[in-house]
Amino acid sequence: MNIHKLDKFAKSLIKEAAGKIRASFTTELIIETKSEANDLVTNIDKETEQFFIQQIKQNFPEHRILGEEGFGDDIEDLSGYVWILDPIDGTMNFIHQKKNFAISLGIFKDGEGLLGYVYDVMADDLLSAAQGEGAFFNDQRIPRVEQANVEQSIISMNASWVVPNKYIEHEGMIELLRKVRGTRSYGSAAIEILYVVTGRLDAYISMRLSPWDIAGGMVVAKEVGAIVTTLANEPINLLTQNTFIVSKPDLHHEVVTNYVKLK
Amino acid sequence: MNIHKLDKFAKSLIKEAAGKIRASFTTELIIETKSEANDLVTNIDKETEQFFIQQIKQNFPEHRILGEEGFGDDIEDLSGYVWILDPIDGTMNFIHQKKNFAISLGIFKDGEGLLGYVYDVMADDLLSAAQGEGAFFNDQRIPRVEQANVEQSIISMNASWVVPNKYIEHEGMIELLRKVRGTRSYGSAAIEILYVVTGRLDAYISMRLSPWDIAGGMVVAKEVGAIVTTLANEPINLLTQNTFIVSKPDLHHEVVTNYVKLK
Repeated sequence: MNIHKLDKFAKSLIKEAAGKIRASFTTELIIETKSEANDLVTNIDKETEQFFIQQIKQNFPEHRILGEEGFGDDIEDLSGYVWILDPIDGTMNFIHQKKNFAISLGIFKDGEGLLGYVYDVMADDLLSAAQGEGAFFNDQRIPRVEQANVEQSIISMNASWVVPNKYIEHEGMIELLRKVRGTRSYGSAAIEILYVVTGRLDAYISMRLSPWDIAGGMVVAKEVGAIVTTLANEPINLLTQNTFIVSKPDLHHEVVTNYVKLK
Repeated sequence: MNIHKLDKFAKSLIKEAAGKIRASFTTELIIETKSEANDLVTNIDKETEQFFIQQIKQNFPEHRILGEEGFGDDIEDLSGYVWILDPIDGTMNFIHQKKNFAISLGIFKDGEGLLGYVYDVMADDLLSAAQGEGAFFNDQRIPRVEQANVEQSIISMNASWVVPNKYIEHEGMIELLRKVRGTRSYGSAAIEILYVVTGRLDAYISMRLSPWDIAGGMVVAKEVGAIVTTLANEPINLLTQNTFIVSKPDLHHEVVTNYVKLK
């Protein structure tokens, strides 16, 4: 398998899918809830995933697909080629804001990240990387991330993690909140990873992300030297939900060591 | 004074200032701190304010200017024409992200909002309104805001307000956080008001904003039926710092009545 051919194919799928998503704004959206009242899905999420699957299966019948909306394969291991796809990451933003959502895609071979993409659909910004070849923001090579200490950093996290919750001791997160320069929250893990990779944020933390939220961004993060682990400082398992941090290296160590106490 | 002439002049100043700000990215930024370690100012904030003041004084010598960086007039009342300006709202975003900051400008006559502007410099998005003539996003008229209940709303607020702080009982804010569909935080009051006015957010709350953060957005918010008050549900005083909420009407009532307890 030629990685550059695969890269070209994946990019063309992403751009075509994005065009369909943009065109969908002129039609009525059908919104449903999934497991929880605030876990939303639309007909466009579903149609976009089905478009990807159809195209991938047609061109690479031996490749398997793990997609958020469940139209792909039942994936219980990462052997061979596996595409991990979120057709619309940030569905709530898609519905309420008609912006600030992304297509997130990672292509893995035997568990190793070959290609990664985060495409901010409305901004027309494509973050991409091929293993060992560096990362790109549109056509521009992204420099490796610099260092940052806690006091001068901007960290993205949901406000839910500084109040009592079932995942993490919130007192440590309050300490972190009081120490950092600022916090942000954008409502799309893929876009938040994009912000860390491009240096607009210093770290992004979440308590519960699915493989499709992070697979694309992880491949890119690695190419610029950003560290991606669970909050227990362990490797991400792409077959299950994980706690999550992507961060500049020193900051990663400081946050995970001094502020995170998982329950 | 012809309000349309004034509007045209203000818009031309904003666009010219924005061009200078964009051009500044090729030169080195001089960053200083103000009252607190995280209250940042750059030479570009200062130069931009000075540019506005020089142009305004040259064309309208009788107008007074209240600017964030303090190069304007000592304003102790709002009689006559007063321009209330934040040359760069979201300075931390300006420095760290090179995007997500805005020029915020309100023009008041005897305390009444005549003209309001929020210009997202890097997105090239201009929010504007003239008193009684409706609001515009670039050249498109903005519809009046719809209603939203707490359960289906996305509210923007800093994570600092759901942890113990000196302004507000945080328990009420935690209740609010748990009830809403989602929270966001973008780091620029002017841009957060822009998001409420254009329907991308349902409300935005802050504990401490200065007149220049909100003056431009307030004029626009009024034109689309969004409610702007302090969190004590009182009119904003443009001569001092205020607590702040801009919101869809029903949601405003619900939040202020059921969730806000100021200290």
